[in-house]
Amino acid sequence: MLLILSSHSSQAEIDALTAHLVALGHRPRQVRRRISVPGARALTLSGFPAVERAIDIGEPYPLVARAAEPLGTTVQVGKVAVGDGGFTLMAGPCAVESRGQLLGIARAVHAAGAHLLRGGAFKPRTSPYAFQGLGADGLDLLAEARAETGLPVVSEIMDARDLDRALPHVDLIQIGSRNMQNFSLLKAVGAAGKPVLLKRGLAATIEELLLAAEYVVAAGNPNVILCERGIRTFEPALRNTLDLGAVALIKRKSHLPILVDPSHATGDYRLVAPLALAALAVGADGLLVEVHDQPERAQCDGAQSIRPDRFARLVESLRTLGAALGRRV
Amino acid sequence: MLLILSSHSSQAEIDALTAHLVALGHRPRQVRRRISVPGARALTLSGFPAVERAIDIGEPYPLVARAAEPLGTTVQVGKVAVGDGGFTLMAGPCAVESRGQLLGIARAVHAAGAHLLRGGAFKPRTSPYAFQGLGADGLDLLAEARAETGLPVVSEIMDARDLDRALPHVDLIQIGSRNMQNFSLLKAVGAAGKPVLLKRGLAATIEELLLAAEYVVAAGNPNVILCERGIRTFEPALRNTLDLGAVALIKRKSHLPILVDPSHATGDYRLVAPLALAALAVGADGLLVEVHDQPERAQCDGAQSIRPDRFARLVESLRTLGAALGRRV
Amino acid sequence: MLLILSSHSSQAEIDALTAHLVALGHRPRQVRRRISVPGARALTLSGFPAVERAIDIGEPYPLVARAAEPLGTTVQVGKVAVGDGGFTLMAGPCAVESRGQLLGIARAVHAAGAHLLRGGAFKPRTSPYAFQGLGADGLDLLAEARAETGLPVVSEIMDARDLDRALPHVDLIQIGSRNMQNFSLLKAVGAAGKPVLLKRGLAATIEELLLAAEYVVAAGNPNVILCERGIRTFEPALRNTLDLGAVALIKRKSHLPILVDPSHATGDYRLVAPLALAALAVGADGLLVEVHDQPERAQCDGAQSIRPDRFARLVESLRTLGAALGRRV
Amino acid sequence: MLLILSSHSSQAEIDALTAHLVALGHRPRQVRRRISVPGARALTLSGFPAVERAIDIGEPYPLVARAAEPLGTTVQVGKVAVGDGGFTLMAGPCAVESRGQLLGIARAVHAAGAHLLRGGAFKPRTSPYAFQGLGADGLDLLAEARAETGLPVVSEIMDARDLDRALPHVDLIQIGSRNMQNFSLLKAVGAAGKPVLLKRGLAATIEELLLAAEYVVAAGNPNVILCERGIRTFEPALRNTLDLGAVALIKRKSHLPILVDPSHATGDYRLVAPLALAALAVGADGLLVEVHDQPERAQCDGAQSIRPDRFARLVESLRTLGAALGRRV
Repeated sequence: MLLILSSHSSQAEIDALTAHLVALGHRPRQVRRRISVPGARALTLSGFPAVERAIDIGEPYPLVARAAEPLGTTVQVGKVAVGDGGFTLMAGPCAVESRGQLLGIARAVHAAGAHLLRGGAFKPRTSPYAFQGLGADGLDLLAEARAETGLPVVSEIMDARDLDRALPHVDLIQIGSRNMQNFSLLKAVGAAGKPVLLKRGLAATIEELLLAAEYVVAAGNPNVILCERGIRTFEPALRNTLDLGAVALIKRKSHLPILVDPSHATGDYRLVAPLALAALAVGADGLLVEVHDQPERAQCDGAQSIRPDRFARLVESLRTLGAALGRRV
Repeated sequence: MLLILSSHSSQAEIDALTAHLVALGHRPRQVRRRISVPGARALTLSGFPAVERAIDIGEPYPLVARAAEPLGTTVQVGKVAVGDGGFTLMAGPCAVESRGQLLGIARAVHAAGAHLLRGGAFKPRTSPYAFQGLGADGLDLLAEARAETGLPVVSEIMDARDLDRALPHVDLIQIGSRNMQNFSLLKAVGAAGKPVLLKRGLAATIEELLLAAEYVVAAGNPNVILCERGIRTFEPALRNTLDLGAVALIKRKSHLPILVDPSHATGDYRLVAPLALAALAVGADGLLVEVHDQPERAQCDGAQSIRPDRFARLVESLRTLGAALGRRV
Repeated sequence: MLLILSSHSSQAEIDALTAHLVALGHRPRQVRRRISVPGARALTLSGFPAVERAIDIGEPYPLVARAAEPLGTTVQVGKVAVGDGGFTLMAGPCAVESRGQLLGIARAVHAAGAHLLRGGAFKPRTSPYAFQGLGADGLDLLAEARAETGLPVVSEIMDARDLDRALPHVDLIQIGSRNMQNFSLLKAVGAAGKPVLLKRGLAATIEELLLAAEYVVAAGNPNVILCERGIRTFEPALRNTLDLGAVALIKRKSHLPILVDPSHATGDYRLVAPLALAALAVGADGLLVEVHDQPERAQCDGAQSIRPDRFARLVESLRTLGAALGRRV
Repeated sequence: MLLILSSHSSQAEIDALTAHLVALGHRPRQVRRRISVPGARALTLSGFPAVERAIDIGEPYPLVARAAEPLGTTVQVGKVAVGDGGFTLMAGPCAVESRGQLLGIARAVHAAGAHLLRGGAFKPRTSPYAFQGLGADGLDLLAEARAETGLPVVSEIMDARDLDRALPHVDLIQIGSRNMQNFSLLKAVGAAGKPVLLKRGLAATIEELLLAAEYVVAAGNPNVILCERGIRTFEPALRNTLDLGAVALIKRKSHLPILVDPSHATGDYRLVAPLALAALAVGADGLLVEVHDQPERAQCDGAQSIRPDRFARLVESLRTLGAALGRRV
């Protein structure tokens, strides 16, 4: 059950309502002007003026279900609004490698029309012997690039113990695929309050992704953006299988914005553009794209990174397509 | 190795060439003005004027590889050209159920802008107790609908023994997902010559799909259209997972046209439109869409069938999008 | 609904029963002394003495469900009983390649303790350019090997048009993975009556496998043996993923015998023995194993074929394990 | 490259060797008497007496590759040796729920022959609203059960910040499937030194599992036990697909012990026994089994938990089978 609170209810009225629910054995969680009451199917709340409306959400994730916000949620990341009907472009290198590399790419994607800068300081790598990112030094470089270009920054955090260090430098905290069900980390970013970009796990169902988002929101942070980045299937020709059907379904099931990452989804820079166009057409709220000025020398994921000039051409194509669809890119 | 024959080579020159290849131990297969020489990596053919050019195709499917026809192939189905840069719409019911049902839907999709009529006479069904299609009677009804609307007909054949009966009534022979590696059937439709619509198997890799197409072409029939219709993954929320990355990759790997079937891919009529738009944006050559006037009473696949009015609106959306992409719908 | 007929019911009584069911709108199918009535949930049959018992099978495959034969079915293949509690060994080369090859291997596996000889005359191959089997000549060689060793023969049929030619030479007709849902072929072998070995498709669910078996039985042939041979998953290290959980579940869900093919499941000859032992331990009714005297020269699947001496050692290990489990190998 | 150090080399000799490698630009990691030199393919080390032997491991995980310890590793967990040729039984409830529940089950599995007690204090749950475990209180109860029965305890840690609290109470730290690639956590348990039970991720390849183990070992902790617990596939009839082929392959690829968890693999208590027997037959080093005295009331995973009496019968069956295989259970 989800309770929509009246916009003019007082804190005392809300407290009375919460106390009543607890007394009934429920575990209510308030996020903004909503209270989720997990497991409740029917509640008599006539004596509580704080309740404007009670909705029986037929899903296990009441806070992120579409019924909780039928018009959808806009997540504000710095000056950029994600999910307001526009199409948000987040671009940059897989990993921050050096000052020159990052600043050069940041300027280029800014000039081409990107809205956020992406770049990894902490890199989750399959092998312990692979480049693990520049860590805190990478965060400093991201802050510098942000200061110069004005682009808000999205970067991944893998460990709750790095969160304090990252919060001043990162505008959108990315939870990577491998950590989608790292519930300790989800609770930590839920408590931190900063907007969160939650990537779907390699073998996560749509329901599991939405329940992972519910973890963050239930911990008090409603600013969650989802990201479809390909799932693992039997097909060996591409790195992953991009699931655009999931994007279409999630737009119906949840009010959260959802991005698409065509770079990780394919692992092949030549396929980024067609899948980016498809992501816009299917109704996604934006893209996460890997851009590198020297893909052949990239410390990770070079094969799926496009050069800045190709990115600029992609933005042009997206704008043409967006115009036809009534979407601002 | 693929040999491109000179357009003014004589039959005697071609025969001399073929005899030479056989004498070398090869098994050449001629399709139109191409001869594939499987397994050959280097050939000295200076004395054979029939050979205009020899291409070392680095793929196991020389006849359908993009290198064999860098500009792509157009397959002519009746008056309709598939793969010429336009976007072909094939629409109709999952199964032919009755005269009234088929004719009504045929008229509606024709009016809405469909280019071909789809409809199953022989239905592959998971259970032996499920409706198996009207069989030969269904073929007659399809012929009647074709006569009235002028739309060429696409319909599935499951058994080579039904081929003779189907050839006069069906303009595009569909090989369904479950039969993608029914090699006897592939050889039979290869010999029959009629255009073939080859649907990707539920767990078929892209390479396996192209090798299945190679079976048909190597049997003498170059008129093959591919179809991506969703693959089987762990995700339970949708019937299948539509693999648009495969479409983008196949456009690079092969010269054959490729369609998308958003109905089978999702199993949910509400998701057909967004995925249809995505299919156009990603570069597919057309759609296969299930349309039914009474989906709730359909004998099969009602949940994924859209009504004619929704199909008409979808065509409008596709035309708007196509205009922005420079594609005729 | 499944009706168990009384063992002393007359043909006239059965005919009366059938006519009654048809009059009620049902489509009864009799196989031996059972009549399945698909879709029926409740029937009043008090006036029909032919009915000994009516069982409401809660599965979509009434004829092959365990409830139809709680004690399990034994399928007789020549002199060999499959499914009687013993553990049946079917061994031989992937493909029949030559007289010398086949006879040599047949003698070796016979000496080692195999109960049936396997060998492919018609080979389903992913590429049209790969060796497709010796065809009818291969059948003749199998017949010769059978005559010499006394071993019944199991071999694959891919096309109903080859069935007449194969029936005299083959004791157990194999339907391969790619044809598990080739419903025309299933009906054809259902009508032919010979015992059928039905291999699970690469992406077939357990329910789909049992419904495919139901096709054969509903067509009049109760002699079906199932085979788990690995499913297709994301794991690239092995050819397929052997699903022994499916074997354990199918033993509960169905009364049909089920074999395991560790050769195709792994694609690696070194893993055949441990998985063969596991198949016995989990409760399978036997094995299908590829044995070749010169795996490095095999025309197909050499990497997964074991040599005759290794097969002989495997049989010894299986006998030791079988003794501990109370199973005769 | 992997360097095996001479057993009588001095610390000074080892330091000289390490300094030399660092000077060459390598990043050597010493674990016990082995030094891995990632990426090195050829090294001239004639002047360094500390090196007994240099092995070129053709795998990306030199420390856990079979070639590094051809005879296999035994991991000592309290008084229990895992991987010494015996078959180790770890049993207990999914979650610690109460004192009475845990002690009752602990006594029962001890009496039946279990070697370790399993029980979750911190529970990773898909939904934020599901029971999350008793946390630190659960650890105390596990310690009490250990004190009474003498069984070492295996329990999951999800957060490096809980490690200090858990170390005194837990003998074998479990890393769950969802955290298999939580690299921060892997490094933390690598530094902690306690034996680690590393469960395969739902969609993790065998190589990724071994690289995750390499993370722990490279961080200084050689005491790693692997666990196969089913992978995620298209099959809906069972919770997961148990991959016993992976067990057979990992026994060849790595020297680490590997267990099987038939409870999570199937999600069905009736299938635990047959798959447990198969795990022993395929060569696994032991089992992780969920046992509950009141499965119908369990707070998690009741459907896959067996009762103590069924566990006792399973142990008997395993002993009989083990005797035939020359394995001590």
